[in-house]
Amino acid sequence: MKKIKYPKRENWSSLLKRPTQEVSDIEQTVLEIFNDIKLTGNTAVHKYTKRFDGVQLDDLMVSEKEFNEAEISEELKKAIQVAKGNIERFHNAQKTEKVMVETMEGVVCWQEKRPIQKVGLYIPGGTAPLFSTILMLAIPARLAGCKEIILCTPPDKNGIINPAIVYTAKLCGVSQVFKVGGIQAIGAMTFGTETIPKVSKIFGPGNQFVTVAKQIATKFGVAIDMPAGPSELLVYADDSANAAFVASDLLSQAEHGADSQVILVTISEKMMVATETEILKQLEKLPRKEIATKAIEKSKLILVETEDEAIDLINEYAPEHYILVSENEGYFLECVENAGSVFIGNYTPESAGDYASGTNHTLPTNGYAKQYSGVNLDSFLKAITFQKISKKGIQNIGNSIEIIAEAEGLQAHKNAVTLRLKSLKK
Amino acid sequence: MKKIKYPKRENWSSLLKRPTQEVSDIEQTVLEIFNDIKLTGNTAVHKYTKRFDGVQLDDLMVSEKEFNEAEISEELKKAIQVAKGNIERFHNAQKTEKVMVETMEGVVCWQEKRPIQKVGLYIPGGTAPLFSTILMLAIPARLAGCKEIILCTPPDKNGIINPAIVYTAKLCGVSQVFKVGGIQAIGAMTFGTETIPKVSKIFGPGNQFVTVAKQIATKFGVAIDMPAGPSELLVYADDSANAAFVASDLLSQAEHGADSQVILVTISEKMMVATETEILKQLEKLPRKEIATKAIEKSKLILVETEDEAIDLINEYAPEHYILVSENEGYFLECVENAGSVFIGNYTPESAGDYASGTNHTLPTNGYAKQYSGVNLDSFLKAITFQKISKKGIQNIGNSIEIIAEAEGLQAHKNAVTLRLKSLKK
Repeated sequence: MKKIKYPKRENWSSLLKRPTQEVSDIEQTVLEIFNDIKLTGNTAVHKYTKRFDGVQLDDLMVSEKEFNEAEISEELKKAIQVAKGNIERFHNAQKTEKVMVETMEGVVCWQEKRPIQKVGLYIPGGTAPLFSTILMLAIPARLAGCKEIILCTPPDKNGIINPAIVYTAKLCGVSQVFKVGGIQAIGAMTFGTETIPKVSKIFGPGNQFVTVAKQIATKFGVAIDMPAGPSELLVYADDSANAAFVASDLLSQAEHGADSQVILVTISEKMMVATETEILKQLEKLPRKEIATKAIEKSKLILVETEDEAIDLINEYAPEHYILVSENEGYFLECVENAGSVFIGNYTPESAGDYASGTNHTLPTNGYAKQYSGVNLDSFLKAITFQKISKKGIQNIGNSIEIIAEAEGLQAHKNAVTLRLKSLKK
Repeated sequence: MKKIKYPKRENWSSLLKRPTQEVSDIEQTVLEIFNDIKLTGNTAVHKYTKRFDGVQLDDLMVSEKEFNEAEISEELKKAIQVAKGNIERFHNAQKTEKVMVETMEGVVCWQEKRPIQKVGLYIPGGTAPLFSTILMLAIPARLAGCKEIILCTPPDKNGIINPAIVYTAKLCGVSQVFKVGGIQAIGAMTFGTETIPKVSKIFGPGNQFVTVAKQIATKFGVAIDMPAGPSELLVYADDSANAAFVASDLLSQAEHGADSQVILVTISEKMMVATETEILKQLEKLPRKEIATKAIEKSKLILVETEDEAIDLINEYAPEHYILVSENEGYFLECVENAGSVFIGNYTPESAGDYASGTNHTLPTNGYAKQYSGVNLDSFLKAITFQKISKKGIQNIGNSIEIIAEAEGLQAHKNAVTLRLKSLKK
């Protein structure tokens, strides 16, 4: 752990710098695979699945039988149900009404949200099946009314998808699940193949190959949820915090990967020391100790002079996850400018939001909390505007339009109004 | 004009295809200029302003004096005020309240929107000063509460910005205006220079150089409003439409540029013929006849069999602007899946939304209406989630979190809950 005491403001930006990723090598690979998929569809997808996942599949799609027979423990089913209920309640509450305004007499404007018709979810494979991400993406997609919700996830060496993934996908109303991972999954959803539909927006996390592939997919007319980087947690804790809890939260972030960003900010040197001691103690007992140790070694414990300094530093960092334990909680909350999701008080671990409390866990990393929202109901909707102007309305507003059109040198824009106004003078 | 009668469904996608743009040449130029600005800041900006705009500036910033002395006619001021009032009313109505849900007893989650702190607006130069775009971008930015709203626009050969642009910028609360255009403007806002601040999100239209520069800026941690392409209008008109009005709307789109997309869809051959006649008649009188003629030559008048076919075709095209004049208006509106902005009835020309009715004119082109919203109040805000869990709350939800964390193989995530639950059992 790096302990930094009273850093000067001019050094903040280097202190808070995230690791930069080299992507140019990957870009070339992505473009080649994309081109191959564009030209040969399924053939290319099969080829890369064999190359990268080491399995020759008969069928890219999870069959009806596999879909219906996925089984997991009753205990896990129940836990998933609890999470699903909370996530549904919170995302359902985000629905907005039509916004309608008569801006002038006879000029009625409104905004309505309509679903993105076709969305694609990407769920990484690997040792742990991240079925919780399906809850976070498929539930709002379904609530938004998306017509087609497809899911791609890499198969294991036997061509099998983890049953927890299949079960959760079915439970949350995913239309089709495909056994495709990595760059080839993103390519297939971008261009469409004989089996895998082209989608309008791709959601979900992934390794650096998936991340670069998603970024490049945006060049081909597909939208993505947000740019991604390694996961991050910043904890602000004063003496009202429980150091053991703080340490457990920092470690839960650290176990994600060696590149996880873990930061403690405090005005209490006592808390800084106590947290460090607790981290070292708890670290010993973790099964993913090796991964967590690497992230913890690079983690930063930052001591600052004042609460206001802490607030400024946190806003400059713009953490993905921000745990706040402070006697002055209300003031800190008011001052949140940039953060993905905020966890408040001693009994609100990040894991709650990761899995079950109701908020979404797909959040902006890498400082993107300055300008991006985490995934929410609106991520699956577009806001469309409508307007209807009456004869009276065009008479009220017409002249202003004519003057502005004229000043911008767009005579035909003016003429569209002039014609209508003339017809009403007859 | 190309008249297409009863096209087969399998030919729709080629019929509705937009022109593809070659960007790879431009990409290299953008990367070079970006790199130069990153390394030498203002020096590079001055160099490219001299090269591309043909002017050596003393100061990149519009001075206090220029800002305060910009003068335009009283008539234009009044028209801008009318537009500003309407745009403010409509965008102000888009404000949303905090969404707060107790998802389980003791588990309180909420979502709040907070402004993007620093935004940059790009306004193209050229023959016509597009000050209306300032209304469309600066008004919602100000309503959202953005702290810093900067504007870049290219100077003319004398180093001057059109007074209508300066006047509107001041009126709408823009913080600073810079005399910088093109790729160098986007680069300056992406990296920041000694004079021009780095921003978190860049908004606004531009030529293909600006468009590519914005796309590439997203690789360097900046967000953009949306990807852009040539402007588009699709009109659906049945026999209840006034052919002269329809023609005037199609022409107002055509005058934007030779690459403008202009489409009429109808079930009435009579309307198709009448519209064509009217277009040819009105075209003669337009000052921008040359530009409009080129766009009109490539325009499409499409006759289909049924209203449902028209609806499907329109949704497949996903027009930026969609004018709807139909006796069956309610049904058509219900069926809108993909469109940027919809203009309803004979007295609602596109120019109304372009300038003054209240809706935003920064809209998704190129089929992006399938997944992107036009610019609206939320474009200047982020949704941040918050949660606070009580002792009772973690006892209610804790076990579900533990089970899911365990199933995902993330022991430290589980431990963060287990520690807290144990402390409450004592």
